[in-house]
Amino acid sequence: MCGLEMEFVSSGIWKLRLGTPERITPVSLQEKEILNEGLEKLPSAHYPPISEKEIQFKVTRRGCVIELPLDEKEQIFGFGLQFYSFNQRGLKKQIRVNSDPVADTGDTHAPVPFYVSTRGYGVLVDTARYVTFYCGSHSHSRLTPDAIESPNMIIEVPHVKGVDLYFFSGPTIINAVQRYVLFSGGGCIPPYWGLGVWYRTYALADQEIVHKHASYFRSTHIPCDVFGFEPGWHSHCYSCSYQWDLKKFPNPDRMIMNLNELNYKVNLWEHVFVHPTAPFWQEIRKYSGNYEVWGGLVPDFTTEARKIFADYHEKNFLSKGILGFKLDECDNSDYRPKPWSFPEVTEFPSGIDGEQMHSLLGVLYQRTIWSIFQKHNKRTFCQTRSSHALASPLPFVLYSDLYNHQDYIRALLNSGFSGLLWSPEVRNANSAEDLIRRIQTAVFSPLTLINAFQMKNPPWLQYDIEKNNEDILLENYKELEHIVRKLFELRMSLIPYLYSAFARYRFEGIPPVRALPLEYPDDANTYQIDDEYLLGDSLLVAPLFAGQQSRKVYLPNTAWYCFWTHQKYEGGKTYNVKADLERIPVFVRDGSLLPLARSLEFIKQDVCFEITVYIFGEKPAEFILFEDDGETYNFERGIYNLVKLVWDPKEGGKINRDGSYSGIRYKIIEWKRVAEDSL
Amino acid sequence: MCGLEMEFVSSGIWKLRLGTPERITPVSLQEKEILNEGLEKLPSAHYPPISEKEIQFKVTRRGCVIELPLDEKEQIFGFGLQFYSFNQRGLKKQIRVNSDPVADTGDTHAPVPFYVSTRGYGVLVDTARYVTFYCGSHSHSRLTPDAIESPNMIIEVPHVKGVDLYFFSGPTIINAVQRYVLFSGGGCIPPYWGLGVWYRTYALADQEIVHKHASYFRSTHIPCDVFGFEPGWHSHCYSCSYQWDLKKFPNPDRMIMNLNELNYKVNLWEHVFVHPTAPFWQEIRKYSGNYEVWGGLVPDFTTEARKIFADYHEKNFLSKGILGFKLDECDNSDYRPKPWSFPEVTEFPSGIDGEQMHSLLGVLYQRTIWSIFQKHNKRTFCQTRSSHALASPLPFVLYSDLYNHQDYIRALLNSGFSGLLWSPEVRNANSAEDLIRRIQTAVFSPLTLINAFQMKNPPWLQYDIEKNNEDILLENYKELEHIVRKLFELRMSLIPYLYSAFARYRFEGIPPVRALPLEYPDDANTYQIDDEYLLGDSLLVAPLFAGQQSRKVYLPNTAWYCFWTHQKYEGGKTYNVKADLERIPVFVRDGSLLPLARSLEFIKQDVCFEITVYIFGEKPAEFILFEDDGETYNFERGIYNLVKLVWDPKEGGKINRDGSYSGIRYKIIEWKRVAEDSL
Repeated sequence: MCGLEMEFVSSGIWKLRLGTPERITPVSLQEKEILNEGLEKLPSAHYPPISEKEIQFKVTRRGCVIELPLDEKEQIFGFGLQFYSFNQRGLKKQIRVNSDPVADTGDTHAPVPFYVSTRGYGVLVDTARYVTFYCGSHSHSRLTPDAIESPNMIIEVPHVKGVDLYFFSGPTIINAVQRYVLFSGGGCIPPYWGLGVWYRTYALADQEIVHKHASYFRSTHIPCDVFGFEPGWHSHCYSCSYQWDLKKFPNPDRMIMNLNELNYKVNLWEHVFVHPTAPFWQEIRKYSGNYEVWGGLVPDFTTEARKIFADYHEKNFLSKGILGFKLDECDNSDYRPKPWSFPEVTEFPSGIDGEQMHSLLGVLYQRTIWSIFQKHNKRTFCQTRSSHALASPLPFVLYSDLYNHQDYIRALLNSGFSGLLWSPEVRNANSAEDLIRRIQTAVFSPLTLINAFQMKNPPWLQYDIEKNNEDILLENYKELEHIVRKLFELRMSLIPYLYSAFARYRFEGIPPVRALPLEYPDDANTYQIDDEYLLGDSLLVAPLFAGQQSRKVYLPNTAWYCFWTHQKYEGGKTYNVKADLERIPVFVRDGSLLPLARSLEFIKQDVCFEITVYIFGEKPAEFILFEDDGETYNFERGIYNLVKLVWDPKEGGKINRDGSYSGIRYKIIEWKRVAEDSL
Repeated sequence: MCGLEMEFVSSGIWKLRLGTPERITPVSLQEKEILNEGLEKLPSAHYPPISEKEIQFKVTRRGCVIELPLDEKEQIFGFGLQFYSFNQRGLKKQIRVNSDPVADTGDTHAPVPFYVSTRGYGVLVDTARYVTFYCGSHSHSRLTPDAIESPNMIIEVPHVKGVDLYFFSGPTIINAVQRYVLFSGGGCIPPYWGLGVWYRTYALADQEIVHKHASYFRSTHIPCDVFGFEPGWHSHCYSCSYQWDLKKFPNPDRMIMNLNELNYKVNLWEHVFVHPTAPFWQEIRKYSGNYEVWGGLVPDFTTEARKIFADYHEKNFLSKGILGFKLDECDNSDYRPKPWSFPEVTEFPSGIDGEQMHSLLGVLYQRTIWSIFQKHNKRTFCQTRSSHALASPLPFVLYSDLYNHQDYIRALLNSGFSGLLWSPEVRNANSAEDLIRRIQTAVFSPLTLINAFQMKNPPWLQYDIEKNNEDILLENYKELEHIVRKLFELRMSLIPYLYSAFARYRFEGIPPVRALPLEYPDDANTYQIDDEYLLGDSLLVAPLFAGQQSRKVYLPNTAWYCFWTHQKYEGGKTYNVKADLERIPVFVRDGSLLPLARSLEFIKQDVCFEITVYIFGEKPAEFILFEDDGETYNFERGIYNLVKLVWDPKEGGKINRDGSYSGIRYKIIEWKRVAEDSL
């Protein structure tokens, strides 16, 4: 397009200003700085991946339209936490936040106007509008009967007279994702405890039930690090009072202290809608939108509302020992019988309208909550039901009330393309098998969460909600409890491995969960595989769904070892893999060092993991453990160690610890060469 | 709102111009004139139903927003062919055309930006945009904790800087609907044959199967008036060539002649997307949009394209004896895995964009096809899959690929609020019972259509598609055939009654199918009843669904008689009504004269109905039969008769024929007082 020029942003990142963009956009509100030191380590890129000349732009009555070329073979992925489709080539997606998408329209809790191509580039449309992407779905009318036109990527941004596009170079698709994440400020690193097991308790629980549940894990030695409260803790909820219901919880401060003494981190549910009984209602009113939700105000967190809300949370929660929050309903609702969230016509004091606020609210809310933890140099790991662009630095994991297991896996794969974290949380189940299959997925995910808000007892004692609440337990609950304990112990043993994956997320922009095309963009076999994924550097996970005794697993080109039996598989093939109830297909990449820790019941402040390093293949690559205090942001100031594990076939294992952190988090107790069927 | 003033349009109709409206709107494209003579007969209204001062208007970055007051009790209905909700109070509806709505979002084949209120008024938002209505679903933020705000009707029109609102006065809700229909140009009157039974044949049929099916009805004496062809008749389809497939149909002209000789009217399936093999592709190309659908052009019917398309149809179809068309896929697609229709960013030669064209295409396509019949002063009755505002004069009935029987009934009720006609067509079924229940609904609807496009045999010979196509017929098909024949004979006997209902639609704006709140707006019991309706002046129909042996029927305040047994029921009560397979609950209003004709197998040009007049109640109101040639538009020039039926308890039945039509269509052969249980 004539007259336009790409502007260099940082290594391999260009910006193209088309027309006159709006004032409020994801990039304009961004608070984290670009992680340039990470970008500089990526392959250099001298030219933008798409040239200005190939780009069409026009302003219409509806907004503006951009067309970008697509070649015949390239495949498109991304658009945030999509549930219903994986490969986006040929599809239409409207990037609109919604809690209950019912079809593959683009609606999701975390829509992101960003996509990547197997041709090795990414494109961010910097807008808080409900932008629509036609991913090669429509062809221009042909000029003559025989002259068939090849379809473009068509992007429509409504209501604007212009927009900034950001282009992220490769050369490979993963490099484009890395650049996007580093442009966002890098990925988050959770505290060690965030990678343990989370349990959210019964919504109707009182202090007694809380105590019972908290004791349960410790007495059964089932690992659990985080104890979460659901809506019932508020004195008024839907909308929120942000005050304890003193009838159910006569002494919340002591209860929290008790939970802390039992080595639980405490997490509180809330949403953003401020009920008139909230102590700061009067103060925050003038900084809120002009429509209510469930009788509560909607604060505009780009104004003074942020400080009012944050200060209240700091004083009343953080200072009392609360280490995290679950931010519910910051998305929107269009597919429910009655719409509950604020309308798109809402006006906010900053000038943001309802559409923009719907896109941004999740991110603004996360930043507001995160700010109090940052202020105290304390890491947190939280949950959010909505997110958007540039969210990778935020220590929040997405969740949903949708509950289809296959869709949850697809969302897990898709989340990585947009620098998001997703928690396939476990609630109830249709059968013991369904429950275990869901827990297995959760164990191999960014957040292992059991949300028992509907249940008086943990779901493995009774997965049926009604029976559970009548205290009718399963006959074989001891058996299930045993399986669940083993799975959670496995989770705990993965923490050092996962923590290092998150360090790569932070410093290099590599998401901890990745779909296969991110690693194997030239392997067309991977383009439609929406049910297996890479977790960290070395593991390929292929979850099972209830009813499956076996499943097809495609192993890309390299050799792989079964995680459980160490049996070796040739790459580039599809296998029918059988599995029993206790295991799902998991494979270790040939040439990996896999550090697995001795399981702990919970993470203490002075945690030190006792690690066995498993050696897969003849010439394994080095593995770098990330080591720091695990609970502050001192690592941002360089206070951490890189613990390099190297295996030399002749000389054996070597450990090279480098950095300025003075503590020791990892003790290597054994190096173990795996042979086939060694377990 | 200051500075704005309502403009008088016609009796009880006002227009309020807000800001600067767009050039292309439903009213700007309207071709029929307001039917003022009908409006003048309605109760006079001296003031608009809502005053300018009560209306808020603002232009935003997204478009414009209007707020209208709602009182606490008023109920809202309308928005076109809604499938998933009936009473709209408290709901959000986006008026967007779509073929496969999956939730209650407002998407439908025929969204109409028009609603009516039980407070006795209607509002039309004159726009081809996807306007959103928040029907009292959201409250403004309160000023103090105790000052709860009452919600308004919020209307957001995207992408515009202004819009015209049209207000339709009552005093009652039916008057508001009447004014809207008369403003649209009045309702359509189908030819007599349009009210008979329609059969659409197997999509893969060749000439032989067509002959077999056409002979079937005549040999079994099952009434059938219209014979329809599905996509397979085109030499290329998806997109369309508009030429016969000569392999399947070596001599289409003769085949049509043969069908005509068998007294069938022939109807052809098509859609609007012009394949390169269509003879007029080259000619229409420059009058088409810049995106293709299924490789076909999308003509812009506000340009020369209309004449090209119409002329071709006139010459190649109308002149060969084709009397109607089925206009498929003129809606849109957003909930399918792959979107097939043109994108909203499409540009059309007239300056219409894709969004506007999606809203308008159904109506423009109908007008294009209708124009050739108008030119020849020949009435038609057709099918369309999309419609919009001001469509009541168009002789087209809506249909859908959705197939939930309950939703079909709800759509039937909703269609009346917006001056639309809807055909709950019958395809396949899950059981014989399901099939009969669906046919019963079709018999008591504006169009009785069996669409057997998936089946080699009529569905009552075998409702299961696979078995049907293997010619495995039901064991009891003779029994079903008998029931179906009886039902179709009932349909034929209703034609004079229905024809008169359509005359009221045309001249008075009263839709032939009406939900109960239209007649009983003060009866709150009717506000949620989405499964019973009034058909014409006297009948209340309560369809049954497969699996029901009985159902609850609310009879509003007046006495009612069972249509079948003549048993009398007090009004204002809910009854549990039992039914066998052959009958559904139908009631006749006390004080009615009900003309029922002797059934015919088909309508011939010189048809004369032999009528028995049933007398319900002591002092029945007069009934006016509408009489004309039944096939031309001469009635628009006043060439018709009103045949007034009057029952005097002392002197008996009187017939008063008045008008300038010289033919005789109705012969009253008997007057029959009904006593309870007289059948």
